[in-house]
Amino acid sequence: MKISDIGGEFALIERLTAGKNKQDKKVIVGIGDDCAVLHHTKNSYLLFTTDMMVENDHFSLKWSTPKQIGMKIMECNVSDIVSMGGTPTYVLLSMSIRKDTSVEFMEEFYEGLYQSADFHGVALIGGDSTHGTEYVFNIAMLGDVEKQFLRLRSGAKVGDLICVTGTLGGSTAGLKLLLKGQSGYTKDHLEPKARTAKEGKTIARYAHAMIDVSDGLASEVRHICKQSNVGARIDFEKIPLSENTIESARVLGFDPYDFALYGGEDFQLVFTIKPENIAKLKEEFSDFTVVGEVLGKEQGLYMLKNGKKTEIGRGYDHFA
Amino acid sequence: MKISDIGGEFALIERLTAGKNKQDKKVIVGIGDDCAVLHHTKNSYLLFTTDMMVENDHFSLKWSTPKQIGMKIMECNVSDIVSMGGTPTYVLLSMSIRKDTSVEFMEEFYEGLYQSADFHGVALIGGDSTHGTEYVFNIAMLGDVEKQFLRLRSGAKVGDLICVTGTLGGSTAGLKLLLKGQSGYTKDHLEPKARTAKEGKTIARYAHAMIDVSDGLASEVRHICKQSNVGARIDFEKIPLSENTIESARVLGFDPYDFALYGGEDFQLVFTIKPENIAKLKEEFSDFTVVGEVLGKEQGLYMLKNGKKTEIGRGYDHFA
Repeated sequence: MKISDIGGEFALIERLTAGKNKQDKKVIVGIGDDCAVLHHTKNSYLLFTTDMMVENDHFSLKWSTPKQIGMKIMECNVSDIVSMGGTPTYVLLSMSIRKDTSVEFMEEFYEGLYQSADFHGVALIGGDSTHGTEYVFNIAMLGDVEKQFLRLRSGAKVGDLICVTGTLGGSTAGLKLLLKGQSGYTKDHLEPKARTAKEGKTIARYAHAMIDVSDGLASEVRHICKQSNVGARIDFEKIPLSENTIESARVLGFDPYDFALYGGEDFQLVFTIKPENIAKLKEEFSDFTVVGEVLGKEQGLYMLKNGKKTEIGRGYDHFA
Repeated sequence: MKISDIGGEFALIERLTAGKNKQDKKVIVGIGDDCAVLHHTKNSYLLFTTDMMVENDHFSLKWSTPKQIGMKIMECNVSDIVSMGGTPTYVLLSMSIRKDTSVEFMEEFYEGLYQSADFHGVALIGGDSTHGTEYVFNIAMLGDVEKQFLRLRSGAKVGDLICVTGTLGGSTAGLKLLLKGQSGYTKDHLEPKARTAKEGKTIARYAHAMIDVSDGLASEVRHICKQSNVGARIDFEKIPLSENTIESARVLGFDPYDFALYGGEDFQLVFTIKPENIAKLKEEFSDFTVVGEVLGKEQGLYMLKNGKKTEIGRGYDHFA
């Protein structure tokens, strides 16, 4: 049986781990959110996450420098911690590199790794290295979150507004330009930045649910709906796009909204928030846009596009 | 510059991370032991480790079943926790699998993963999945250790005896048989088992330093010497070999002691212990052999073979 036959990557993991979550009071959240959440101190939880990046899937040596690869593997893990309302702390790096890898390549990679780690206040404290035919980098990251600010995919409430930080689709727009060999703005793909822990914590004070954009807005809102047992409406025209993304899509002949909805690795935050808290949050952090509303489960998940109800496709899935 | 030009894998990591260990009171041990050790509770430390396994390096689908691969990636991480005197607790799995991977393959892999996890009392609480051209599995594992029983590579004292649990060389003997297509005993390679946390803790009560055998006895004793700032003598003839390993080596035309000294993945424990504590430990745990002695640094590291001082080669290094 193929993985695509059972519905792709997420369905596979659900099938493989079904019924395996043990009763364990120390596990606050197990499989199924951006991070696992563990009992820690009186006032805080321990966050634990991992992300793997594979050559020619998450990056290509044709256009990424080793330094950019080092930055990206750190940022994508930081983003998972931040999306729970947490602060990243400690990191282990595992890597499978080619036998003929130069010392200079690795020095540049570590330069990027440490640059991003230092920016986010994370310490690299160990790891594992081995070799293979393609580059694979994996980070496992710990973080702390104050109990009261832990935000899960499952926290959305009917009537919440759905918001997203920054702009979306930039990473996919850059990737498409690179794949087609066309010039344009590619930095969002080559050097994506996680939101900071400070920003995440500010949002967490007002938000009910939060998730980061790894696989496109559609996929992330779908996760929130499923785990919060709610429906949602995404307002197509409100999805924030940068000028660069719009221009790249024009050159490429694509719809830039597709990059935002179904692309990946933007590392922005999607959160749901009570309407009356929007103004309060704006006073402290304003780089976000309202893009929809949390609805009752019976209303399902749909998009309002040109005033019409439209079905939402799926986000990026490695095995779909 | 090639990685082999600067001395291989361990030298590369030292070079890349030199001077980067930050002053951080919460990091008890950073880069350079089997696990990182972090501040945790009043009486215990948090252990944090990761190990990556790559197809055709750590396993081959020509002879390993998916179930065996699942068991092995769990066991090799458990071994790191146990070697510090700790108890493994929580695990994240990342994997890069081929797009055409069958659901059945993954079900078997998870069967092995959970079988080993259940045996050691470990809970899988999350992970990441992506795809690539070769299979790569990575586990990040947490564990607890009572402060008083934490055992490091750096704890060896002059006059300690060097001991090793079980027998050595079995994994490499099995691998060589498989590579040459010869029949024989291959289970030590296909299904290596970590020592249990209970065994590790029992040893830790009496031992000064401890490390697990990932890269061969020579490499592990070298690590202990370097980090404890001591020398050591390995008594060649005392190295414990199983009948199976001796027979495999005979068939293959190799010296079985080379498998023990320079092979890898035996997941036994090497520890150093005061001579007077040997008898006490034996009462509680007896599956170990004295294979040498910790000496002053000025005496260096050497092997006594047929009564003669002999130089010790290097263990398995992915980039040597």
